[in-house]
Order: sequence, then structure tokens, then C-alpha cells
Amino acid sequence: MAAAGEPEVIRDKAAMRAWSRRRRAEGKTVVLVPTMGFLHEGHLSLVSAAAAVAASAGVPVAVVVSIYVNPSQFAPTEDLATYPSDLAGDLRKLASTGAVHAVFNPPDLYVRGAPGRTSGDGTSGGSAVSCLDAAAGGDGHETWIRVERLEKGLCGSSRPVFFRGVATVVAKLFNVVEPDVAVFGKKDYQQWRLICRMVRDLDFAIEIIGSEIVREADGLAMSSRNVHLSPEQREKALSISRSLVNARTVALSNSNSASEHIKNQIVQTLTEAGGQVDYVEIVEQDSLVPVQTIDRPVVICVAAWFGKVRLIDNIEIRTQP
Amino acid sequence: MAAAGEPEVIRDKAAMRAWSRRRRAEGKTVVLVPTMGFLHEGHLSLVSAAAAVAASAGVPVAVVVSIYVNPSQFAPTEDLATYPSDLAGDLRKLASTGAVHAVFNPPDLYVRGAPGRTSGDGTSGGSAVSCLDAAAGGDGHETWIRVERLEKGLCGSSRPVFFRGVATVVAKLFNVVEPDVAVFGKKDYQQWRLICRMVRDLDFAIEIIGSEIVREADGLAMSSRNVHLSPEQREKALSISRSLVNARTVALSNSNSASEHIKNQIVQTLTEAGGQVDYVEIVEQDSLVPVQTIDRPVVICVAAWFGKVRLIDNIEIRTQP
Repeated sequence: MAAAGEPEVIRDKAAMRAWSRRRRAEGKTVVLVPTMGFLHEGHLSLVSAAAAVAASAGVPVAVVVSIYVNPSQFAPTEDLATYPSDLAGDLRKLASTGAVHAVFNPPDLYVRGAPGRTSGDGTSGGSAVSCLDAAAGGDGHETWIRVERLEKGLCGSSRPVFFRGVATVVAKLFNVVEPDVAVFGKKDYQQWRLICRMVRDLDFAIEIIGSEIVREADGLAMSSRNVHLSPEQREKALSISRSLVNARTVALSNSNSASEHIKNQIVQTLTEAGGQVDYVEIVEQDSLVPVQTIDRPVVICVAAWFGKVRLIDNIEIRTQP
Repeated sequence: MAAAGEPEVIRDKAAMRAWSRRRRAEGKTVVLVPTMGFLHEGHLSLVSAAAAVAASAGVPVAVVVSIYVNPSQFAPTEDLATYPSDLAGDLRKLASTGAVHAVFNPPDLYVRGAPGRTSGDGTSGGSAVSCLDAAAGGDGHETWIRVERLEKGLCGSSRPVFFRGVATVVAKLFNVVEPDVAVFGKKDYQQWRLICRMVRDLDFAIEIIGSEIVREADGLAMSSRNVHLSPEQREKALSISRSLVNARTVALSNSNSASEHIKNQIVQTLTEAGGQVDYVEIVEQDSLVPVQTIDRPVVICVAAWFGKVRLIDNIEIRTQP
């Protein structure tokens, strides 16, 4: 594929859509890689996956990376204010791939209502409250997409507004960028499955690609939040990937392992390392329904705090029948 | 505009999208008129509004009328089973307009899950239950769009699943048909405003046109449900439009009329005619927030039962400043 060179930076929605439509009219496949910025090798692997769409299909692609920290997926108690950012660094990294044609970096994606202008009871109408709801006035954004089963459990339990915000902002990005293909990382496993379900249920004409987790040399799953870990916390956090690999080894060497036993081992490893476990769950890959025994394709999902940093990770297990 | 002749009937989603994309590639503006069928003059006025898009903009249009009775906007207690239909008649009427190029008439728009296959607690995850939720298995449709403020009040109070179902099916139709313009009737005033809000909030690249109410010669707002009225009920139902016209006369001849007074008069008229009032509300045109005095552009919205038929109607009032 020809090098894309310096990506064009687009900040306006209408300009973004016009850019995409021009590329589509030229016969190109538009591929979107949604991110919240502060890019690392994991994100760049999503770009590679986007570029690979071209190689495999033999069609010219136009790759768009969006950089937008979405306030509606953060609860007011969460780390929106301290979420790391480095636009200049991000643009440098994306340019270095030679595979990104445009960066969509909108100043805001939501309509903020006039303060004091309220409608009905003046609340957002739902029980969920995000950093966006808290800031928006009464005629501001009020449309939300919920994937009602997949948003529950796992990260949805401790982050009740998270997937509502993710589904909604992704739908907005889909409608602005109008991609043919979108790439999501499987590190956010529940998010990836939820987006696939939303695309199916709402008939978006978009193919979703799930891209494999990228890890540091020592096994830690790459995350923008890793930058907040102290060296000691980072060392302790290796217990996540280590316990997941061990769990897979156990599951693959025994048929019909009991989930409870494997989950307990992971919890014990994380706790001994000084982590505070949010959840450890073994669930079906498609439905994310918990399983009692590992007798079908599953994924083990983990969320744990190390200091003030919440990390997630997962491992897929496909036992031989 | 050249007569469109016999419209092409399309039943498959992918075929529908391909049809639209071909028309768009030919430089045509694709206009969607969503309906639930059993068409009357009111629907045909929406088609005229769609055709007028061409005349006013000087661009060639491709008009698509969708006919689909959406199960997810009906509660199990409502009239999905008896909702009238007449596809052959509908196609005849649409052909006679000479302005419809395609009819999208899918057998079903939703993924129905395998029965008995449940996820999590086995419920749909929300409190709302529609005819679709009741019929769908555990891996069936689970993605819902809610316009959280505008869905409340008016019809939303007595029909809690209605607007969730409407917003969701309209988003699906938008994603399948990919129109540039969509036409909605202002008889369903709350629905029209809610769709406008959804389009704004989710960044759909679609212009929404609100088309005026079409009435029978005697003033009754046209509705597919009118067919269920007995001659006596139909006569009594004229109290709706009569009371709305009277209310407007009162409001226009007095500055700052009290809403309460006008609402009471309407309720009295409807009740005396033998109707059972669901609601009478005077609300701001954009936000649908109730007003105390009529000192800005408002709409009076009414829903009332005559026998087993629930009818809605409304009238906009723009007082002179």
C-alpha cells in the first residue's frame, strides 16, 4: 500500500463526513479506528488491522483515526479530568505508521443545553448520570443507546454509565464518519461484543473487526492508563496477565474445568500481589453469559485496581472438543 | 417531475440499501416516508411533501415509502394484533400518486433470539416490555434508543414502550434505507419532535420534514385507526378537532391565556361528547414542556378514547407578540 504520509486533521463534523464521502465516491473503503488518544502500540496495532483490510480485500482504503475523550462514558467519580492526552505525540505516532489518511479530532461531539433551561423534571430522565449529563443543560443531548443485556455484568456492574456512553458515542462517530469498516480492540472485550451487537440490532452497514490484545514485553496489556502506575504497581499488575495465562493452561489441560476453581485461583493471585479485584468472570464469548464449566469457547475477563488505577484484561479459551 | 410509475417492492434489507446507494450514486436525493401501512390521504400527503423536496430543491429524488408494522412500539396490551393492514390497497394508492419509486416492505426488521436462550437474568434488561420483547428469545434484539426527556409525558405516560420502539425502528430504517430526507406527519407531534432530537443527538445526516395534519372534510384528523370507529363514535370524535379549533380561537383573541382554563374547556367538551380523555396538554413546540400561560409558540396535544379506539390530535398556536 502507498504510504499515507501526514494525516489530515479534521475537527468539524460536516468536513469529516464530506471527506469520507469523497473517498467513498473514489471507490475507497473507509475504515474507522475510534480512540480516546494518548496512543500506544495497542492503538497502532488497530491501525495495522485497518491497513490489513486493504491488503486482504485488494481494495484501496482510507483510514480515519478518531481521537476524542468521550465525557458520557465517565461517571463524575471517575478519571475524566486526569485521563492522559498528548495530541502532538499522537499525530506523530500516526504519521509514522504511514497508514493513516485522516485524524478526526472534534472539540466536542455533543449538543450542550442552555444552563437553567430544563425540560420536564429537569433531570436527564434516566437513572444513569455521566460527566456529560452533569454538565448539560435541559435542552442538551438526551438520546442514548443501550445494549440492554450485554451492558450488564463485568465492567457494567461497577461502571453503570460506561456502555451507554460508549454505544452512543460510537453511533455518533459512525454517523459522522460513515465508515465501511471499524476496528475495535479485544482488550475492551465487552465493549467489542456490545458494538457488534449494536451494529447487528440497528442495521449499521459497517463491518466490525476485533483486533487482538497487544502486550508489553513482560505481558502487561497495553493501556493509556498504564502511565499512571508507579514502577512497583506496574510490577504487581503483571499478576493479571500471569494469572490469565496460568488459568488458560489449567483449562486446556483439563476438560470441563470448574469455573469457580479457576476464578478463585486468579482472585488469589491478584490479591496476593496487592491488587483489589473488581471482578473475575468466565463467560461465553458471544453472549458474555457466565459458565459453570469450561466446555465451550469462553473468555476470562478481569478488572482490578492497583493503587488508583483500574486495569482490565482478558484471555480467550477455545478448548478442543 | 417525471411520473414514477409502479413502485418497486423491496423486501430485503440489503437489496433496499443497494437500491438507495444506486440512486444516490446517480445524483438523486433519497427521501424516506416511514409508515405502518393501511394508507390514507394523510400518508399520501407525506408522499406529496417528499415529491415537493424535488420541486423546491431542483434535484431529482427517489422516494421510498416503507410499510412495516413495528411490534416494538406496541405493548402486549395494545392493538398490534388488530392493527389494520391492506398491502394490495396500499400499493395501488402509492402507484396512483406517480411519485413513489420504491416500497420497502420487510417481513421482519428484528433479530428474534432462539427461544429458551437467555442471557443474564433472562429479561430484556429494561423495565419496558413490548410485543417484541415478549416474543424475542435471549440472544434476540436488545439494543434500544431512548430520547430521555421528549419520550416522557403526553403519549409517553400511557404508552411507556412506544417511543423507545419508534426511535429504534426509525434508526434501523435510516440505516437500511440511508435517506437524505425523511418525512414525518405532525399529527404524531411528539414523535416528530422526538425524531428531530434523535437525528440531532446521534448525528444522522438526514433532514427531517414535518408535514401538516390532513383532516377529513368534517375535521377528524386522518388515522389508520379511524376505520375501527362506529358511525356514532366517529361523530362523537369530532369533538376533538372542534375543541382544538375553539381553543385556538380563544388563545388568539386573548393575550397570555391561562393554559389551565383552556385545557379544562377541552376536557369538558370531550367528556360531554362521550370521550374518555387520556391527556390534554399545552406545551412548548420544541421542548414539549408544559406552559402555564400561552405567551410563546405552543401546541395543544390531545389523546382520548372513543370506545376502544384511542385517537390523538393537536393544533399549533403561534400567538402574535
